[in-house]
Amino acid sequence: MKKTNSTPTMKDVALEAGVALGTVSKVVNGLPVGEDYRIRVENAIKKLNYQVNSYAQGLKANKTRTIALLIPNTLEPFYASLTYHINLALLKRKYRMLLCSTDYDSNLEQEYITMAQQNKVDGIIGLTYNPNLVIEESTPFVAIDRSMGPKIPCVASDNFAGGQLAAEKLADLGCKNIAFLRTGSSLTNEPNKRKAGFENGCLSRGLQYEMKIIEDGEPFEEFETFLIEHLHDGKLSFDGIFCVTDGLAYSIVKTLQRLQQRVPEDIQVIGFDGTKYFGNKDYTCSTIVQPVPEIAELCVELLLQENPLSRPPLICLPVTYAYGGTTKEKH
Amino acid sequence: MKKTNSTPTMKDVALEAGVALGTVSKVVNGLPVGEDYRIRVENAIKKLNYQVNSYAQGLKANKTRTIALLIPNTLEPFYASLTYHINLALLKRKYRMLLCSTDYDSNLEQEYITMAQQNKVDGIIGLTYNPNLVIEESTPFVAIDRSMGPKIPCVASDNFAGGQLAAEKLADLGCKNIAFLRTGSSLTNEPNKRKAGFENGCLSRGLQYEMKIIEDGEPFEEFETFLIEHLHDGKLSFDGIFCVTDGLAYSIVKTLQRLQQRVPEDIQVIGFDGTKYFGNKDYTCSTIVQPVPEIAELCVELLLQENPLSRPPLICLPVTYAYGGTTKEKH
Repeated sequence: MKKTNSTPTMKDVALEAGVALGTVSKVVNGLPVGEDYRIRVENAIKKLNYQVNSYAQGLKANKTRTIALLIPNTLEPFYASLTYHINLALLKRKYRMLLCSTDYDSNLEQEYITMAQQNKVDGIIGLTYNPNLVIEESTPFVAIDRSMGPKIPCVASDNFAGGQLAAEKLADLGCKNIAFLRTGSSLTNEPNKRKAGFENGCLSRGLQYEMKIIEDGEPFEEFETFLIEHLHDGKLSFDGIFCVTDGLAYSIVKTLQRLQQRVPEDIQVIGFDGTKYFGNKDYTCSTIVQPVPEIAELCVELLLQENPLSRPPLICLPVTYAYGGTTKEKH
Repeated sequence: MKKTNSTPTMKDVALEAGVALGTVSKVVNGLPVGEDYRIRVENAIKKLNYQVNSYAQGLKANKTRTIALLIPNTLEPFYASLTYHINLALLKRKYRMLLCSTDYDSNLEQEYITMAQQNKVDGIIGLTYNPNLVIEESTPFVAIDRSMGPKIPCVASDNFAGGQLAAEKLADLGCKNIAFLRTGSSLTNEPNKRKAGFENGCLSRGLQYEMKIIEDGEPFEEFETFLIEHLHDGKLSFDGIFCVTDGLAYSIVKTLQRLQQRVPEDIQVIGFDGTKYFGNKDYTCSTIVQPVPEIAELCVELLLQENPLSRPPLICLPVTYAYGGTTKEKH
């Protein structure tokens, strides 16, 4: 490995360009200088690979070109994918990202927000579980999946349409009697609209349905009990299940196999998220795909734009259906 | 959502504590003041939830309490898990993390390192694919999985022992004739020791083995061709396969199923990494588990310690075997 003992300073740039230090400073800070000087400085910056010390610049211009991302973790594939795409969208624009894994801890979320603000980040993107976070008006904030008031834009998938699409898809694939299984917080958030969309889809197609909803912290076994209650002579009274996430669908498919039900021959299963094994292999199940790269891009766009008036309170991006082995493929 | 219009300043702390501004500054910067004053300032800081503006502090003390993590992406589970655990280990110590997804791009890696250094990060943790990176001596750097010279500590799993363990495990489980499949760069790096460890394990147990190695960019189908060449009357001449990663094992198991081979009845498969579906569910296959939380913790420890002499060039942490459905369970 090669090593150098120094990185170029503004002085080196001035020397290389043959101009005064003040001229370099003006170019770096976007102040007017003669065209010829500007070109010489820019060429020197390029040649030396000089990069502005943005901590110093941050103090001066109150800009750090740094954004904080609050996300529960990077272990769950949906969060991992969001983190990756937001990171890329920021880096494309020469912004840095502070990663703040919150582990669903509201106190930690608040701590990060306070920390981020006092370190003068230029903005925060947050997927949080705390509706009572204290956020300074002066710090741009874009929320994912949870509306945090009219002044804070929220970006999400069109979860209602996704729930409806799942019901319609199961109907198209021949299901007559379906179930909706959900885990998670019952607090108001965008993903909770999957339920209403699903009900709407069932009604519009005349499908019978049942729901089983368990709260965070309740044992997963309640789903197994629910399924067993609907087994008659070894046959399940459902022929389709919509699970609120791919992670749940994965566990339910395993449970169904334990109960000697064949997926998709006896019962078809659709999840939600669009998770792929190892990030880039097959879909983990047939699924409603969230447009993660588009969500990431839009969060960054909204956060960085100058005019707060063009930050609408809620933007829902379109979802799609993808076949992933747990439904009968339609040819 | 609640909003406030200001975060407390050093002035507010001075007012609250009933001391001069200079006293607050001394306490914040760790300079000596009278015990009574220190307690009053610390109580005021706590009460107001005041947080030091570390950009200003960074300029003064040349410390930013910020670390950059260079990692290919957060999509692949092993990287996602490393990112998560390094983030937690840093946050526990009140350090912030800049996430830099490099997408395996050497130019991007170098760009981030230069950027990070010029922004005065306190150190860099990097899992990189470029042995020629230019790193300033003055910036602490800890490498993962690739030795970058005697002055830069490298933290990795004990990959040699892991390869050996895989071979021995297959022998213990009754295999007589096994294969090793590998994709990836042939550049010198720690994970490449899996191959030598595997060979060692085979020799010590008197196992016959074959290897099939394809380079990055070569088509995966070459593995399928290799397997088909070893099919005789519908029966594979191997009874065990060690795959260099869980991701490869996943794909190979699917290929074996297409070739009508039963896993684990006809052929047992062991992967490497310890990947779990959805980050927290079942192991994706029987596997050699990398101790990711321990790797993360050690990287951060080594990076932050003051004495560079106590940074050994290479530390290999112990791996373990975990059953994940693709081997015959030993009771």
